[in-house]
Amino acid sequence: MTSLQNRQFKLIARPVGMAKRSDFEFTTTPAAEPGAGEVLVKVLYISLDPAMRGWMNEGKSYVPPVKLGEVMRAGGVGRVVASNDPSLAVGDHVVGITGVQDYAAAKAGAMTRIEPKLAPLPRYLGALGMPGMTAYFGLLDICDPKPGETVVVSGAAGAVGAVVGQIAKIKGCQVVGIAGGPDKCRYLTDELKFDAAIDYKNQNVSEQLKLHCPKGVNVYFDNVGGEILEAVLAQLAMKARISLCGAISQYNNIEGIKGPRNYLSLLINRARMEGFIVFDYAARYPEGARAIAGWLADGILKAREDIVDGLETFPETLLKLYHGENFGKLVIKVADA
Amino acid sequence: MTSLQNRQFKLIARPVGMAKRSDFEFTTTPAAEPGAGEVLVKVLYISLDPAMRGWMNEGKSYVPPVKLGEVMRAGGVGRVVASNDPSLAVGDHVVGITGVQDYAAAKAGAMTRIEPKLAPLPRYLGALGMPGMTAYFGLLDICDPKPGETVVVSGAAGAVGAVVGQIAKIKGCQVVGIAGGPDKCRYLTDELKFDAAIDYKNQNVSEQLKLHCPKGVNVYFDNVGGEILEAVLAQLAMKARISLCGAISQYNNIEGIKGPRNYLSLLINRARMEGFIVFDYAARYPEGARAIAGWLADGILKAREDIVDGLETFPETLLKLYHGENFGKLVIKVADA
Repeated sequence: MTSLQNRQFKLIARPVGMAKRSDFEFTTTPAAEPGAGEVLVKVLYISLDPAMRGWMNEGKSYVPPVKLGEVMRAGGVGRVVASNDPSLAVGDHVVGITGVQDYAAAKAGAMTRIEPKLAPLPRYLGALGMPGMTAYFGLLDICDPKPGETVVVSGAAGAVGAVVGQIAKIKGCQVVGIAGGPDKCRYLTDELKFDAAIDYKNQNVSEQLKLHCPKGVNVYFDNVGGEILEAVLAQLAMKARISLCGAISQYNNIEGIKGPRNYLSLLINRARMEGFIVFDYAARYPEGARAIAGWLADGILKAREDIVDGLETFPETLLKLYHGENFGKLVIKVADA
Repeated sequence: MTSLQNRQFKLIARPVGMAKRSDFEFTTTPAAEPGAGEVLVKVLYISLDPAMRGWMNEGKSYVPPVKLGEVMRAGGVGRVVASNDPSLAVGDHVVGITGVQDYAAAKAGAMTRIEPKLAPLPRYLGALGMPGMTAYFGLLDICDPKPGETVVVSGAAGAVGAVVGQIAKIKGCQVVGIAGGPDKCRYLTDELKFDAAIDYKNQNVSEQLKLHCPKGVNVYFDNVGGEILEAVLAQLAMKARISLCGAISQYNNIEGIKGPRNYLSLLINRARMEGFIVFDYAARYPEGARAIAGWLADGILKAREDIVDGLETFPETLLKLYHGENFGKLVIKVADA
């Protein structure tokens, strides 16, 4: 096994603002030998997630920060190339936390076997993975949208947002997506059948919300924070529910996060803003996965991945997320098979 | 009846920052004749409420703004001196929206008869009135505090906050009150039996919260907003609930309201912030009133009023609220009987 060469991105500095290549060390060393109960996974795709920027910060959050000198944390899909555990065999495909590297040695129990024939591999990092679970539980459990209600989702062409909007349509809601650029907006209305799309890069979000949500916003699934959150707060319906999933507009903000100045709209409208972390729903993932796989199979839910080639592109590819340049679930293809 | 002289404060300008005397016209005219189904109420006490500042602003809120030229809106307690409705008799005491004036003509159905022998009259504007209902439903319905949980309340020596903290104690919670000045803090711990009090004018609120809430804040009842809201957000326990009752620190803010910069603490802690308006609970006021009256009678809930003499003091007395100078429910005594 020691002949396998393992390229790794290690975090070596806490980024200020956007992460840059010099915040990482890109090294090549022999792949680790899997220990007892461990498997060695050849990484095929890694997942690029908005939350990654937060993991690079020091300080308490919902997961410990990546330590300086450690391989950068990432979800990934791969193939087992060596196994010291009876639960996984060489050749099995798995999803789990692999890190930004070619080969990951991990406890077999920390990896989940997946079926490559059922869906393209990167989909297990998107609609069939954490983003799908995040959309499913963050929308249904936190907001309980009712048929006929107006649901707004930001980051709507992203991995989570696209699933949120489509689930809301399946539940009989009026769905308005907020995304950047005419291509994404066309995709939302033409392909995903959203009722309306707002192009925050070229349109006035407040005016468009008034136009498309004349009875107010009953449910808002927030992936972005910042000015878009404020625009939606200004347009809440009574008893509205806001699911706080993230605030990608704020993660690289050097001056510190901006709070929503009109948060008292929650008071006036007897509305609720609630945060959640998908990991809390681990016991219910099978429920979410069954539902999403069923909708995908029935063709009433569509998934899209944005695949960038080459592990070595990691620092720059990550920034596509924060610049809103990805279109669908952003992954890096690390190897063919 | 026309011989009755009625002093009135009419709103004649939309205040910028703190309301001042010149934003009102103080006039004396003959009292109105009550119309069909109406009563004429001699006002004995009027209620000074933080929300009054918001009512003076133009623009949509949970109640329409007071129009320019209209008598300033206020809750009040009074005595019926003329009645054109069989439901109320001359001599009955009532509570309702009287406005800032000596005599209010109002629909009999808009006034609620009260029993002056059961409690001091101003209490019907405090613990037995809207502030009591606000505390009861805003704490129990929005936050559902459990025995052993840590409950923090700001504006804790005010009309709402003092009741919130005492109900939380009755429910078996650990209660920390935030108030301004050592006298109020002593009152909270010595008289109202709060577990701890934080003097925001003389102590570091964040440090004191860490000290008194070592397991984090499970429930926060927010009357003040601003920096204190941020300090509590930084100390939330998992699955915390925040009841948004008001933001008195922000009502006179000329630069615009500040949003809580660390609102993503809601996400990290899977916490919830929810607004409410007491009027929505009108159908359940009897439940709240029975509970509070019972606790008052049993001596396990205490109420305190801060009584200022003279209708003519209205503009200056109102400011006591925003300067945190009132100690208990702030009312103006308009007449003896």
